[in-house]
Amino acid sequence: MTQQNRYDEEHKIQYYETDLTGKVTLGMLINMLVLTSYDQADSFGVGTDYMLSKGYGWVIAQYEIDIKRLPRDHEKVRLVTEATSNNRYFAYRQFFLEDDQGNELVHVDTICVVMDLTARKMVAIPDDAVAPYHSEVVKRIPRLSRPASFEESDVAATKTYRVRYFDLDSNHHVNNSHYFDWMMDALDEEFLIHHELCHLAIRFENEVRYGHVVKSEVTAPVNNEDGTATTHHHIMGNDERYAEATLTWRPLSATTVD
Amino acid sequence: MTQQNRYDEEHKIQYYETDLTGKVTLGMLINMLVLTSYDQADSFGVGTDYMLSKGYGWVIAQYEIDIKRLPRDHEKVRLVTEATSNNRYFAYRQFFLEDDQGNELVHVDTICVVMDLTARKMVAIPDDAVAPYHSEVVKRIPRLSRPASFEESDVAATKTYRVRYFDLDSNHHVNNSHYFDWMMDALDEEFLIHHELCHLAIRFENEVRYGHVVKSEVTAPVNNEDGTATTHHHIMGNDERYAEATLTWRPLSATTVD
Repeated sequence: MTQQNRYDEEHKIQYYETDLTGKVTLGMLINMLVLTSYDQADSFGVGTDYMLSKGYGWVIAQYEIDIKRLPRDHEKVRLVTEATSNNRYFAYRQFFLEDDQGNELVHVDTICVVMDLTARKMVAIPDDAVAPYHSEVVKRIPRLSRPASFEESDVAATKTYRVRYFDLDSNHHVNNSHYFDWMMDALDEEFLIHHELCHLAIRFENEVRYGHVVKSEVTAPVNNEDGTATTHHHIMGNDERYAEATLTWRPLSATTVD
Repeated sequence: MTQQNRYDEEHKIQYYETDLTGKVTLGMLINMLVLTSYDQADSFGVGTDYMLSKGYGWVIAQYEIDIKRLPRDHEKVRLVTEATSNNRYFAYRQFFLEDDQGNELVHVDTICVVMDLTARKMVAIPDDAVAPYHSEVVKRIPRLSRPASFEESDVAATKTYRVRYFDLDSNHHVNNSHYFDWMMDALDEEFLIHHELCHLAIRFENEVRYGHVVKSEVTAPVNNEDGTATTHHHIMGNDERYAEATLTWRPLSATTVD
C-alpha cells in the first residue's frame, strides 16, 4: 500500500485471543486493530509519546463495526488502518481486517477526538498531530450510526463489574476493549454460544475509572425480519451513563460462514 | 536450537499486553509462554486436537515462576519451552523468556498432568503424547516450591470475581491467566504500583466453572530481610479452595532493572 494515510500489519490469531467457540473475541480484535493506529502514528513521530509531551491523548469516542466473519485460532490476518479525514475537532479513522487472501472480514469506522489529559476535556486537534497523514480536511466528517435509545424499564438483565487494576492501560484509562466484554457478558451463555455478532454501534460518553463499579444493562433480544436479533446496551454507574451500544447478532445455525 | 524437546518463538510485546506501568502482565506472559507448548505439541502431531480426539487434555497443575525483569511495551522477546522430563503421571516442563540479547528475564517451572475431560479426572500420560519429545523418563520429577499455608484469620483483604463468558477457553475451562489477575487485583493499587513481582509459587486444586463466584483472599504483605515483601493468596469458592499461591515482590524504588 502506498497511500500515506494507510498502514497495515500482519497478525496470527492465538488461542488466548479467542473465546470458547475458537473465534477471536471482539475485545482482542479491537486491541489489535487499534495497535495499527498507534504504530502508524509512531512511524510519523506523532505517537503516544509525542501526544503525552503536550499533555494530550487520542480517544476513540464512537465505533461502528461491521463483521462478515470473525477469524479463528491460528488464522493469519492483515490489520489495516486509514486516517481518512478530519476537521478541527474530529478525525474519521477506518480499520479493516482482511483474511490471507485479502478478503475483508471486518470493517470498523471510528470517530476520534483529542483530550487534554489534565483538564480531561476535548480540545482542537493539533495541526502537527495530523499533518503527516495527509488526510482529507473536511467540513463535516461522516456520521456513524448511533445506538438506539431505550428506557430503564426495558432492561432485561444487569450484571455488575468492578474496574480492576489490570483493566487500566498506561494512560490510567480503562481500555475500550473491556466495555465490549462487559456488554456481551451481560447476555446469557445460551444466547452467546448460538449467536455471532454481525454489527455494533457504540458511543462512549464518560470515563470509567479504577475502582468504579459499573452496571452492564441489556434489553431482551428482539428478532428482526432478516433473521438477525438486536440487543441494546448501557454501561451505567452512579446514575451517569458511560457508554451506550446497539448490537446485531446472526443466529449460528443460519450462518454460512463457518 | 537443535534439542528435540526444546522449542522457541519470537514475540513483540504490545500495548494491550501491558499494565499501567507499561510492563507485560503476568497473565499475558503466561498466555504467550504456554502458546509455545501448544505449538510444539502441534509440530509433533500430538497437540490439542490429538488429545481431544482421545477425550484428554493437558492441564498445568503447578507453577514456580522466577522473574528478573518483565519486558516492556514494544520489546522483542524470545519465548522458549522445554519438555524436560516425565514419569507415568507427571510431566516437568520449563519455560524461559529471553530478551533480544538472549538474557534470561523469566524462568517458569511447571508440573503438567493429563485430564480425562469427561470423567474430569487425572489419568496416566499416554505414551504417544510424550514419545516425540524424547524427554527424559524419570522416577521422580523435581518438586516445585509449594505455596505456604495460612489461616482464614490471616486474610487481610478479599475481592470477589464472577467467572465471565470471555474467561473461558475453547475447552470451556477458565484460562489459568485469570487466576493470576484475580490474585494480584486483590492487593491495593498503591502496593501494585510500587512493587514488582519477582517470584510466584502457585498450585491449582479444583476447577472453577462459568458463573462461579470466587473469592480472592490475600494476607497483609510481610517484609523480608532482603527488602522483598511476601503475600499469600487463596482463590476460594463454596468452601472449597481452587488455588493457593505465595508471591514475592521487589519494591520498585530499590530495583536496579528499570
